[in-house]
Amino acid sequence: MSKYADFVLYAFWRTASTHRVRIALNFKGLTAQERFVDLDKNEQRNPDFLAINSLGAVPALIEEGYPPLTQSLAILEFLDEKFPNPPLLPSDLHGRARVRSIAAMLATDVNPLLTPRIKKYLTSAGGFDETAWQEWQIHWLTFNLQAVERRLATESETGRFCHGDAPTIADICLVSLATKAFDIKIEGIPVIERIVKNCVALDEFARAHPFLQEGAPLN
Amino acid sequence: MSKYADFVLYAFWRTASTHRVRIALNFKGLTAQERFVDLDKNEQRNPDFLAINSLGAVPALIEEGYPPLTQSLAILEFLDEKFPNPPLLPSDLHGRARVRSIAAMLATDVNPLLTPRIKKYLTSAGGFDETAWQEWQIHWLTFNLQAVERRLATESETGRFCHGDAPTIADICLVSLATKAFDIKIEGIPVIERIVKNCVALDEFARAHPFLQEGAPLN
Repeated sequence: MSKYADFVLYAFWRTASTHRVRIALNFKGLTAQERFVDLDKNEQRNPDFLAINSLGAVPALIEEGYPPLTQSLAILEFLDEKFPNPPLLPSDLHGRARVRSIAAMLATDVNPLLTPRIKKYLTSAGGFDETAWQEWQIHWLTFNLQAVERRLATESETGRFCHGDAPTIADICLVSLATKAFDIKIEGIPVIERIVKNCVALDEFARAHPFLQEGAPLN
Repeated sequence: MSKYADFVLYAFWRTASTHRVRIALNFKGLTAQERFVDLDKNEQRNPDFLAINSLGAVPALIEEGYPPLTQSLAILEFLDEKFPNPPLLPSDLHGRARVRSIAAMLATDVNPLLTPRIKKYLTSAGGFDETAWQEWQIHWLTFNLQAVERRLATESETGRFCHGDAPTIADICLVSLATKAFDIKIEGIPVIERIVKNCVALDEFARAHPFLQEGAPLN
């Protein structure tokens, strides 16, 4: 454990789930010493890493003296409970339910469909070629983002961000997914585009961009 | 809204996500008047229902005077916050993080791969036949349940249930997935089998079984 960081973060530059944790750490003013797990080299299946996360997936956040924290949404809830300021969930019960629901529409319903292990399966056993894989991604991103758009466009709680005028876990999930899909144009999501723009103008989001992380191309 | 129930629940008998909400309601001693959304007839895509959940997915839980609550994990968190007894999350920070992480390994990482809309895509655009669809389900259930098994078998917090000796959100997710996969034999998961057995011996789990719900075969 580094003396100079609050946590150790097992990370890969590109994954949306790691991206979410980096954004949350930035909001909480916390630092993490990153340990690079190269998914392109299948390092997540090394026995050493499987002992940290039995699923073989990044991120894993290590707090000295405690078992590894895994699963990005669980980590975000943990960080928000342990370090309440600034809050990443609304203070009211129904607001929290709405934010967690939007977050799940993004991180639970679509993100797991787009992971390296799904790509590997579909392009081998599944018989997908590169075009079919691209169509799969476009289909689910469009389906889920347009559903999120309909909520954001019609629900009165939407503000400068997904829920009111301060960023929440929902915005973190939205930006991580939008960033992952950066080279795919999704039609008909103007509210999402406006909110993502508001997010990435903030330093906490900007510094967490995957292209700025260790292991990224040209970095 | 019924005068005789605490909530209205838009539900389908078979889906794991609805199953999770039914179990949680039982633990909290709450009742829901169910409104049947027939996924086999694609009723979740009717405009009336899309106005309730823009994603076109069950469950949606309606509390009188509030917007619909959607996404099963967000609903479970809501119910646990609003009705704290009995708790469905541990009282300590790291315990909550562990339970949420195990819940996500089940409900976030594997369940979204097994939904009717994924089946529809894979067996049409994806070119899967029935055998390929069956293999896809077996592959991801095995991959994720064996990863959960490795955690449960090695982590000291595992008890009679996933976390200690009282049921939590992790057990609810585990039972909902095990029930969904009831006709698929997964090898090498003795701890999971033991915990599921302990769960379904409880009335709160037993009453929520999909086969006992409106719309189920022979019911």
